[in-house]
Amino acid sequence: MPHTYEYPRAALTVDCVVFGIDDHELKVLLIQRGLEPFKGRWALPGGFVRVEETLEDAALRELREETGLKQAFLEQLYTFGEVRRDPRERVVSVAYYALVKMALEETRAATDAADARWFPVSKIPPLAFDHREIVDAALQRLRGKLSYQPIGFELLPPKFTLPQLQFLYETVLGLPLDKRNFRKKILGFDLLIPLKETQASGRRPAALYRFDKARYERLAKRGFHFEL
Amino acid sequence: MPHTYEYPRAALTVDCVVFGIDDHELKVLLIQRGLEPFKGRWALPGGFVRVEETLEDAALRELREETGLKQAFLEQLYTFGEVRRDPRERVVSVAYYALVKMALEETRAATDAADARWFPVSKIPPLAFDHREIVDAALQRLRGKLSYQPIGFELLPPKFTLPQLQFLYETVLGLPLDKRNFRKKILGFDLLIPLKETQASGRRPAALYRFDKARYERLAKRGFHFEL
Repeated sequence: MPHTYEYPRAALTVDCVVFGIDDHELKVLLIQRGLEPFKGRWALPGGFVRVEETLEDAALRELREETGLKQAFLEQLYTFGEVRRDPRERVVSVAYYALVKMALEETRAATDAADARWFPVSKIPPLAFDHREIVDAALQRLRGKLSYQPIGFELLPPKFTLPQLQFLYETVLGLPLDKRNFRKKILGFDLLIPLKETQASGRRPAALYRFDKARYERLAKRGFHFEL
Repeated sequence: MPHTYEYPRAALTVDCVVFGIDDHELKVLLIQRGLEPFKGRWALPGGFVRVEETLEDAALRELREETGLKQAFLEQLYTFGEVRRDPRERVVSVAYYALVKMALEETRAATDAADARWFPVSKIPPLAFDHREIVDAALQRLRGKLSYQPIGFELLPPKFTLPQLQFLYETVLGLPLDKRNFRKKILGFDLLIPLKETQASGRRPAALYRFDKARYERLAKRGFHFEL
C-alpha cells in the first residue's frame, strides 16, 4: 500500500444547524443528548461520518435519524477543529446549516423525535461542546447570505404573501424594513410569480406569490446579482 | 471510556491554495509530488493533520515545510469529502486559501523549496486528486470576497500605488475598471493613508499609499460595509 497516514487519527463528525421560521420568530432545531459527555444537554443534531458516505450524506442521515427531517436546503458552513473541543478525544466537525419550511410537514416529522425541539434563536439554552459557537457562525452566515442570495425562500412555504416575506427578512436580520421600499425592491427583481389565490391576512386578503427558482438560476448563470 | 466512534476512520488532510500577484498576473503556488499516487504531478501544498494540532496550524506547518512560506493571510475555504477523491483510501481534506505578498521576501523563501513553483491561474497544469476543483473554488471565493472585504491588500506590498491597486482588482476579477471611478470609490472609503514617498511609474512618480487596517477593523465592528 502506498504511503499514507498512521494512527492515531482524529474522528470526524458532522453537525447541523437547522433554521426554521414560524409566525413569531426564527428558530433552531436542537436535540437533547442521551449519552455522556454532556448527557442531558441540548446540542446540534449530528454524529460520526461513516467511511463510505460523503459529508453531506452523513449530515442528511443524522438529520433524518435524530430529528425525523427528510429534506432540507443544506449547505456546508465551516469545519471546527480545535484540539480539545470534545472531551473524549480529538474530534473534527464539519458543520452544515439547513433551512426548512416549518409551516409544512417537516415540522411534524421533527417533533416526532422524542428529544428534538425548536428553540427561538433568542432563547438558546446552554449547548454541549462548542455548539453555541457553531450556531453563532451559522446565524452570521444566514444573515450575510440573505442579502445577496435568495435563500430566504427556503424558509417559507411554496406560496407566501409579501408581508410574510418581509417578516422573514426583518426577523432574520433583526431590523425593521420600510414596507414600500421592500415591496418595490423585491418585486423589481421579477423573481416572484403572482398567484390567483389570496390569503386572509389582517383586514383584507393578501396576494400570494411563489418564488421563481428556475428563472433565478438562469439569471444567476448570466451574472445576475440579487442584492436586497 | 465513554462512547465514541470505531475504526475504520477517514484520514484528515489540509490543502492550501496560495495566491500571489506580480506585475503581470495572478498566480498560484504549486508543488510537484515526489511520491505516489500522482507522482510527478503538480498539486496543492498540504498534508495529513496531526492529532495534536489545529487545522489552521496544520495548514501553516505544511506551507512552511513544503513551500518555505512563513506567513500568509489564511482563511478556511471548504471541506472536500467525496468518498473516492484519494485512490489510497478515504481522505477528507479541509481546504484553505492564502494570500501572500509576492513582492516581498516570501517569494524568495517559496522558491527555495526545490519543487515549489508559481503558476499563472490561466496556465495551471493538470493537478493531482481533486485539486483543480479546490483551486476553482478558491478563485471563486477570492473574486467574491474582493468586492465586499478589503482582502486585496494582503496581496500587495505594504506601500503601493493606486495603479497597482487597480491592476490587482482588474487582474483578480478579470475585467477592466474605469480609472476615475475606481480612484473615487477606493479613496472615498478613507481607508488609504497617503505617504510622503512616491514611486517611479510611467512618466511621472506615482503617490504611495498604505492600507489603514486598524481603522477598517474599527469601522467593521460598527457595521461599516466595504463594497467596491
